[in-house]
Amino acid sequence: MSTPPAKPQTAITPTRTEDYAEWYQQVVRAADLAETSPVRGCMVIKPWGYAIWENIQRSLDRMFKDTGHRNAYFPLFIPLSFLEKEAEHVEGFAKECAVVTHHRLVPKPGGGLMPDPESALEEPLVVRPTSETIIGASFAKWVQSYRDLPLLINQWANVVRWEMRTRLFLRTAEFLWQEGHTAHATADEARVETMRMLDVYADFAENWMAMPVIKGQKTEGERFPGAVDTFCIEAMMQDRKALQAGTSHFLGQNFSTASDIKFLDQSGTLQHAWTTSWGVSTRLVGGMIMTHSDDDGLVLPPRLAPAHVVILPVLHKAETAPQVLAWCRELAAELRKVHYAGRTIEVEIDERDLRGGDKVWGWIKKGIPIRLEVGPRDIEQGSVFMARRDKPHKEKSAVKRDEFVARVAAILDEIQAGLLEKAKAWRAEHSRPIDSLDEFKAFFAPPRGSDPNAPVPPHGGFAHARFCLDPEVEKKAKDELGVTVRCIPLEGGDDPGPCVLTGRPATKRVVFAKSY
Amino acid sequence: MSTPPAKPQTAITPTRTEDYAEWYQQVVRAADLAETSPVRGCMVIKPWGYAIWENIQRSLDRMFKDTGHRNAYFPLFIPLSFLEKEAEHVEGFAKECAVVTHHRLVPKPGGGLMPDPESALEEPLVVRPTSETIIGASFAKWVQSYRDLPLLINQWANVVRWEMRTRLFLRTAEFLWQEGHTAHATADEARVETMRMLDVYADFAENWMAMPVIKGQKTEGERFPGAVDTFCIEAMMQDRKALQAGTSHFLGQNFSTASDIKFLDQSGTLQHAWTTSWGVSTRLVGGMIMTHSDDDGLVLPPRLAPAHVVILPVLHKAETAPQVLAWCRELAAELRKVHYAGRTIEVEIDERDLRGGDKVWGWIKKGIPIRLEVGPRDIEQGSVFMARRDKPHKEKSAVKRDEFVARVAAILDEIQAGLLEKAKAWRAEHSRPIDSLDEFKAFFAPPRGSDPNAPVPPHGGFAHARFCLDPEVEKKAKDELGVTVRCIPLEGGDDPGPCVLTGRPATKRVVFAKSY
Repeated sequence: MSTPPAKPQTAITPTRTEDYAEWYQQVVRAADLAETSPVRGCMVIKPWGYAIWENIQRSLDRMFKDTGHRNAYFPLFIPLSFLEKEAEHVEGFAKECAVVTHHRLVPKPGGGLMPDPESALEEPLVVRPTSETIIGASFAKWVQSYRDLPLLINQWANVVRWEMRTRLFLRTAEFLWQEGHTAHATADEARVETMRMLDVYADFAENWMAMPVIKGQKTEGERFPGAVDTFCIEAMMQDRKALQAGTSHFLGQNFSTASDIKFLDQSGTLQHAWTTSWGVSTRLVGGMIMTHSDDDGLVLPPRLAPAHVVILPVLHKAETAPQVLAWCRELAAELRKVHYAGRTIEVEIDERDLRGGDKVWGWIKKGIPIRLEVGPRDIEQGSVFMARRDKPHKEKSAVKRDEFVARVAAILDEIQAGLLEKAKAWRAEHSRPIDSLDEFKAFFAPPRGSDPNAPVPPHGGFAHARFCLDPEVEKKAKDELGVTVRCIPLEGGDDPGPCVLTGRPATKRVVFAKSY
Repeated sequence: MSTPPAKPQTAITPTRTEDYAEWYQQVVRAADLAETSPVRGCMVIKPWGYAIWENIQRSLDRMFKDTGHRNAYFPLFIPLSFLEKEAEHVEGFAKECAVVTHHRLVPKPGGGLMPDPESALEEPLVVRPTSETIIGASFAKWVQSYRDLPLLINQWANVVRWEMRTRLFLRTAEFLWQEGHTAHATADEARVETMRMLDVYADFAENWMAMPVIKGQKTEGERFPGAVDTFCIEAMMQDRKALQAGTSHFLGQNFSTASDIKFLDQSGTLQHAWTTSWGVSTRLVGGMIMTHSDDDGLVLPPRLAPAHVVILPVLHKAETAPQVLAWCRELAAELRKVHYAGRTIEVEIDERDLRGGDKVWGWIKKGIPIRLEVGPRDIEQGSVFMARRDKPHKEKSAVKRDEFVARVAAILDEIQAGLLEKAKAWRAEHSRPIDSLDEFKAFFAPPRGSDPNAPVPPHGGFAHARFCLDPEVEKKAKDELGVTVRCIPLEGGDDPGPCVLTGRPATKRVVFAKSY
């Protein structure tokens, strides 16, 4: 028997290059972020994963409030007749609606329970897939005059879109999100709002998630059902696929007409308001995971990390253990007073009775930014042994305790900045202008391996190519190459030339990619 | 024609004594807290009302985390078979469940949409009325050994219990709440947890809501379906009815047996865990409204107020308006740096082009704790004209600007403390020990007015009376007198004597009241 060739050991198997999809699932599992539930398509978000979402919520909520928005809450259920009000909208969501038809259970002949036929609803209710129509009903009551505008509302809520093929965080039947809904007196104001919130999302993605994004407009085929224009932020994952990380829609007067949101303008004329909506979801957690994590597991951008520092006291020897623990607790208390990114430093002390190596690897897989090992000798020297999640796991350095306390926020900033730079470099490496159809096809062609059943390795990236914007052509590219237009970037002006797919005249380059 | 007798004018009609139920609706409407929605039984929580809930959430969440709990999120849907696992539990909730039976809509012959018969679910899903069973399924996976215990989890979520007669905040089909779920290695530990969270709720009610509560145990008939013991906090509203404001359940091994939550104890024996659950909901907002508001509208305890101070600049004269506004904005900026109750002072500047009186009354009805009027003459004297929501609306006083900034937090504390004292005095006034059946009946008898169609005026209160704890007798009291046992108070020891209803021996006094 021959031994297999030596391979660098990683905490996560398979690695990203071996099987990216499976690697993702294993990272989520190893970091204890979420799990599937017995309810088809619905996930359980575990405490470490939910804390990331809470940090996302806290930061975004502050940004929404700083831009004048207020939170409110609207019903979970939408009467069928409301959904029907906007033709494209209902068309877009009808195929994935959870429908409530009864309001009572009764014993079933033979045991168990069943919906009571006598409790059948006259009008079925849909569990909200998004809330334009039900919020529109309130806006119609709230808006009478131009003085009531703009109306700037946000809702944090759960929504349901029935999905057959689900993936933790990225695509689940139920997910958590925020949905902004605003009404304005003019089209211009509504367009400004649409772009303002797109900017908020891009700012959040880059500065909190350390995830660089391209801001752009969707093509007709990828527009939100019922919108006039949909804008988005698109990020590149480590398998070089694009992830749509947030959308902002200019809805024109489509929904205000459907919901009858009208106001008296300054000249006394009754007009339909102009509305927008915009949202991001728990999908962001998936994007964060796929942007930064490595073959040893989760890597957390410090600004969203549930905890920033874990202290691992060396407690083997009974005679020194109490002293070590006391020293660590004092250090933790001091660190918890340090301000960082709108909160204070969060510290874990891992006192569990486990092998040191198991503990260290557990925290690496959970992505905590800084690990400190503290033993009796470190205490004697007034120092800690520090390791960073963004460095190789064996790279550790002794740091004087007080220096660490003084520098911890700066170190976290350095890690945060480094993650963003790394992600930008990755995107740059796998983005390129493409002008010929052959090159385009080659760029997106899956590498051929010897085993046809093996997972397809990461390939492709962002192709910046001219496109004639013909929806039929776009559909063909999707069917034949698995590639879609992710967005028409807002930055970068006109660059006329032949469409990469048809040779017809085109005015701009768009971003083509495979996507989630 | 004779003129009707003069009556003190109030901002809310009817007054509390004229028609308490209608007064409540009008207070909610005048303060712009919430409204009914087109979806039967579901409410829309408007920004001013939702901000109160956010403050409740923030404060409680901190208290949960300080007691070692972590947040997570579990599916909205519960498979029917899960609900059936605990017999009493399903019995308690079967009659009020929203049932999802289909996952797709298709065009209906003749127009519109209907659930696609081909999308019928094999097993219907219930929209969670509470999550013991679905969380139990996760706990069963998470708990293997005594080392995994205690497991201390909380969830912020929406739940649905189909209700036919609804009232904003107090009883709605969908409501927002938190539900704590914990698992422990011993019955004792689980009982300690049950009482710890009851204490957290009582602490929150008194110190944040300024709402005094009685902690007690529920009788058999009022127990949570599936619980071994249910504990509660009960508050007296201004119509002297009781409001159950929070519950904490010791579930014994009922749900761990149903969900198979088992662990290996230290001796290597497999045991079922001991679980608890506890929750408070948006009902608290209703309790807060009914505890403090008066015939001029909402009164907000400062610690939960969406904003603490409104500045009303006097802007009639074009020549002084810019200066007044600038002065007010500077004052607001300074106030916003002052810390109060875990956040900073929130200030509104009301620059709307409305009559001064309309603005003042608008803010009175919204319950803001402090109003400041600022005109050119006030500025000359470096002072503001201050009015407090807890004082008569005409009572205003000039305060030096800097003195106000220095004292604002103390003034808010004073208002908060005053509200609690007033609510305590109200409860004391309408509580009494009762030892005879005649007195008991008289205490709870509705006053007879001349008009049989008029609303019943507030009456009754808390009767502290001995009770034999016979469920049949309790049911009879409910049917005949509309009175229930709100709780068996934890404080106050045994006080043996004859049951007020039957004369049979009883060991303790319980709290009888009419209730929400």
